[in-house]
Amino acid sequence: MHSDLKKILVLAPHTDDGEFGCGGSITKFIEEGKDVFYVAFSTAEDSVPKGYPKNILETEVREATKILGINPNNLIVYKFQVRKLNYVRQEILEELVKIRKEISPDLVFIPSPNDLHQDHYTVAMEGMRAFKQVSLLGYEVPWNNISFHTQCFIKLEEHHIIKKIEALKAYKSQQDRFYANEEFIKGLAITRGTQIGTKYAETFEVIRWVIR
Amino acid sequence: MHSDLKKILVLAPHTDDGEFGCGGSITKFIEEGKDVFYVAFSTAEDSVPKGYPKNILETEVREATKILGINPNNLIVYKFQVRKLNYVRQEILEELVKIRKEISPDLVFIPSPNDLHQDHYTVAMEGMRAFKQVSLLGYEVPWNNISFHTQCFIKLEEHHIIKKIEALKAYKSQQDRFYANEEFIKGLAITRGTQIGTKYAETFEVIRWVIR
Amino acid sequence: MHSDLKKILVLAPHTDDGEFGCGGSITKFIEEGKDVFYVAFSTAEDSVPKGYPKNILETEVREATKILGINPNNLIVYKFQVRKLNYVRQEILEELVKIRKEISPDLVFIPSPNDLHQDHYTVAMEGMRAFKQVSLLGYEVPWNNISFHTQCFIKLEEHHIIKKIEALKAYKSQQDRFYANEEFIKGLAITRGTQIGTKYAETFEVIRWVIR
Amino acid sequence: MHSDLKKILVLAPHTDDGEFGCGGSITKFIEEGKDVFYVAFSTAEDSVPKGYPKNILETEVREATKILGINPNNLIVYKFQVRKLNYVRQEILEELVKIRKEISPDLVFIPSPNDLHQDHYTVAMEGMRAFKQVSLLGYEVPWNNISFHTQCFIKLEEHHIIKKIEALKAYKSQQDRFYANEEFIKGLAITRGTQIGTKYAETFEVIRWVIR
Amino acid sequence: MHSDLKKILVLAPHTDDGEFGCGGSITKFIEEGKDVFYVAFSTAEDSVPKGYPKNILETEVREATKILGINPNNLIVYKFQVRKLNYVRQEILEELVKIRKEISPDLVFIPSPNDLHQDHYTVAMEGMRAFKQVSLLGYEVPWNNISFHTQCFIKLEEHHIIKKIEALKAYKSQQDRFYANEEFIKGLAITRGTQIGTKYAETFEVIRWVIR
Amino acid sequence: MHSDLKKILVLAPHTDDGEFGCGGSITKFIEEGKDVFYVAFSTAEDSVPKGYPKNILETEVREATKILGINPNNLIVYKFQVRKLNYVRQEILEELVKIRKEISPDLVFIPSPNDLHQDHYTVAMEGMRAFKQVSLLGYEVPWNNISFHTQCFIKLEEHHIIKKIEALKAYKSQQDRFYANEEFIKGLAITRGTQIGTKYAETFEVIRWVIR
Repeated sequence: MHSDLKKILVLAPHTDDGEFGCGGSITKFIEEGKDVFYVAFSTAEDSVPKGYPKNILETEVREATKILGINPNNLIVYKFQVRKLNYVRQEILEELVKIRKEISPDLVFIPSPNDLHQDHYTVAMEGMRAFKQVSLLGYEVPWNNISFHTQCFIKLEEHHIIKKIEALKAYKSQQDRFYANEEFIKGLAITRGTQIGTKYAETFEVIRWVIR
Repeated sequence: MHSDLKKILVLAPHTDDGEFGCGGSITKFIEEGKDVFYVAFSTAEDSVPKGYPKNILETEVREATKILGINPNNLIVYKFQVRKLNYVRQEILEELVKIRKEISPDLVFIPSPNDLHQDHYTVAMEGMRAFKQVSLLGYEVPWNNISFHTQCFIKLEEHHIIKKIEALKAYKSQQDRFYANEEFIKGLAITRGTQIGTKYAETFEVIRWVIR
Repeated sequence: MHSDLKKILVLAPHTDDGEFGCGGSITKFIEEGKDVFYVAFSTAEDSVPKGYPKNILETEVREATKILGINPNNLIVYKFQVRKLNYVRQEILEELVKIRKEISPDLVFIPSPNDLHQDHYTVAMEGMRAFKQVSLLGYEVPWNNISFHTQCFIKLEEHHIIKKIEALKAYKSQQDRFYANEEFIKGLAITRGTQIGTKYAETFEVIRWVIR
Repeated sequence: MHSDLKKILVLAPHTDDGEFGCGGSITKFIEEGKDVFYVAFSTAEDSVPKGYPKNILETEVREATKILGINPNNLIVYKFQVRKLNYVRQEILEELVKIRKEISPDLVFIPSPNDLHQDHYTVAMEGMRAFKQVSLLGYEVPWNNISFHTQCFIKLEEHHIIKKIEALKAYKSQQDRFYANEEFIKGLAITRGTQIGTKYAETFEVIRWVIR
Repeated sequence: MHSDLKKILVLAPHTDDGEFGCGGSITKFIEEGKDVFYVAFSTAEDSVPKGYPKNILETEVREATKILGINPNNLIVYKFQVRKLNYVRQEILEELVKIRKEISPDLVFIPSPNDLHQDHYTVAMEGMRAFKQVSLLGYEVPWNNISFHTQCFIKLEEHHIIKKIEALKAYKSQQDRFYANEEFIKGLAITRGTQIGTKYAETFEVIRWVIR
Repeated sequence: MHSDLKKILVLAPHTDDGEFGCGGSITKFIEEGKDVFYVAFSTAEDSVPKGYPKNILETEVREATKILGINPNNLIVYKFQVRKLNYVRQEILEELVKIRKEISPDLVFIPSPNDLHQDHYTVAMEGMRAFKQVSLLGYEVPWNNISFHTQCFIKLEEHHIIKKIEALKAYKSQQDRFYANEEFIKGLAITRGTQIGTKYAETFEVIRWVIR
């Protein structure tokens, strides 16, 4: 793998977007000793299913990122209001600029700028603004993408996919959601693997790729 | 389903491209009593694996399309030289114009105009030229697509997918190819289903959609 | 026509956008017994010409949609402030989600996502978010489009065009506007018809086309 | 008008494409004293309707361009085989390079590079190669365009449109074609005029615009 | 040069963007006797380096535009808050509509609609809305552009580039910024000149080009 | 730098295209001990200036690639006829497939698929076909690009640029060409450096980026 990528930052509009978008790659990076940071912007307190505490998604993202092997100190959870991130885009950008100064990542994962969800779009755009001078990859969220450019592939092994599935299962409050479906996660990974002649992969749009 | 679509034409640069690109939809259309035509442009005689007769792909496409339920009289197999369709693009266009006059289809399936393979690209472009005034959908071939616009979806049931897998298995001379892989075919169908909230689907680029 | 399209929803940023964008198709759909719903987001009270009551556009949209044959019970008129829809995009999205749950349309018409007007763009984007799992067509507003993809065509007869012109004439407060011009409406319909070899048509961008 | 545009070159794959694509603008340019050159690449001898001499289109293009006011010495008619220009693209490019050296035009009209017709595409691409350092506009041929970018507009007066219609009528051998239809030519011109707030216009894609 | 372009308007999100984006062309236009107007939307008071008065950028833009030859009466400086223009987009649009009515320019320069900076994007979009019926060019700001379409070129002479460099040097409060770098400004002008076979040029995206 | 990139292949339609497109990066790669291969497809014998031997470009490419540090055994020079590569695209593809089997590169440089020159376009497309499962970057040739996506950057030091200039100077038969111009080469490198906050860089379009 790319030994010159040392610090990797994952931007997730909502807890769980990062695990879905690049969970397999995160596990692989951590295996290789890289330092991975995870930032979630909303714990979607307005959308928590009945019977769960309001902050359930915060609890779950701690569990899920631990499963992927992310150091708990590398997890930042904001509490911006779900579905309304665009109304506070400048605040989000300012937080990202602070994070850039502190962490100085080599590679940043964001949602695709073509992602239809309003919060994903906001994080994608402000992420591009804050990190335009480093490597920037846009992850796939098929139910929100109409067009997708499968430009970058990260080859994965079966155990990376298994970890990704386990991490997504940590979101017990979301278990009715289809993404918890093992068959779907594997099917997507096989589809992407097929494009580069391997068994499994995750795919990304390349916004920037910087070789220093 | 669309009761006003009566005659459907599938253009396959090589035998098996049509089964892979829209095999599930073909089965569904036939179930609904529609008339489906299948045209293959090359039997790839130059690429047949050792130990098989030169015309093995012709034999196999007859078998595969029968499994999908296509009337053998609706199958046309040309013997253009594989990988060199672009050198005879005007001949191909003229054949397509003849087919249009004879069949007068309501809906035509072609490879995506973004398909990287030279023969797929040729069939896509000449298909667009011949059929620009009827509904035209471009099918997905993930290992040849970099960008894909998942605009159109055809919802499928499990038995449609099973038929598609069976049809692809009829290509015994191609069994080392990954597409014979059941897990991959299902995985792709689930990925596409997820985008419209169903279990299974096939996706297509919309080149034209004409409502008369 | 497509007998499987039963419920059709038209989203108009301002009263009259829907009549202009797809008035001919609405008449045709209604002739075929389909259920058509029309939602306008602003009555542009800030822009009403002198001498007219503030709510004149609400009166006129009732008249115009009646001419097209839309059931008055299928008309919803919001009073969001003209030119500022983007400031309340989440409210609009939430209204659309409610409408989706109530009506559950098969096909939704929105402005093109490439429409330059800020209110049109907002309705296009929120419409895509709310209805991404059903068929979605973007209508043409030539004075606001720089690029347009003429992907979908709905074939029309002369009497559909005549109804469209009549409906637009119901907007007496807007009669200085060029779109009331019969020659222009017919000219556009002929231009679009020419693209599919018929006398008249309306054209649309295909955002999603779902066949269930 | 642009007084610095002195020499204007129109590239027409087939006789009549230039009249349709920019006939109004040609008349306007000539009125303003500019020098307009017209090059047709094929007289489509293989497609001439029964009862006409093989070279009828050559005769007609001479008549039509005269009506627009083009000096007969400024008309060049090649006899490349219709529908097969792509097979001789380098020959065409070499002719264009010669023409560039002789005429040295300030502005060149070509079909849109998105034009679906194989001959139009060839002339568009070779035109771009030969003239990439001068102003280059791609004209509209609605029945061959799926996407079109209405970037450039040339405002026209009614008498320009009338001349355009007259020029197209000079193609007596093509009178069954819809483009001879006055209503259509006017309708298209009004549609385009509407986009810039005038009565009539022709629209073009801007490939290059060079201000020296 | 284009003698029919009489009034030219430059929209700069922040003071200095206009000088960087089209400073050479401004000098050339003024040499040719055209009337050039310059509008800046923010003086970025929140970003002024220590030791400078809050309104330093206002002072500097007066100096810089004077160097380019712009009449001081043709300079309009707004004080919108830097980095937050999108929150007041309708106010900006209304100001632009007023300016259009007063000045009625033939050609308007805006940032590229692909510019990543949030304020540049806002001025580009509102500029397109206000001036969609006149010629509109999008200027290049390389550190904010990922994709750029080098469609339009304005040929420049060495003395135009020198004036541009001088104007940028007037921004003493910004002298640590790389754009003050003479080698960079010249290098960019040579790169763009190379594309049209001249020594120096500035390049622009064509949003609209209207010939009346 | 990327320690996992071991074998790098540069595809040059004509001798000198590779030096211009990625000469700085080649030097950097070689410094880092990577194995760089260079393939030229035409020595443009039909275009050699008077007074030079027909094979002068072959001699010069040997000299130029030596300056960059490429092992002479890693240089392959084909003698396809200049300006006509598209007529033999399948032969070129078959050569590329052979090269892929022999060398098995990790990263391949090709012209941008948007490059206007017919030979550049052919090498770009066949290169994409042959190497679609490895990392693929498209280099910049400003005089042939209208649109360019500056996605990938390779940071360079001054001595890399100096080597690039020296290599280009080895093409004595081409010294009238502007690219021999030191100011231009440096200017372009500074422009690209500016985009990622460094002094010098080369930029590339990302067609594929594969992390194994």
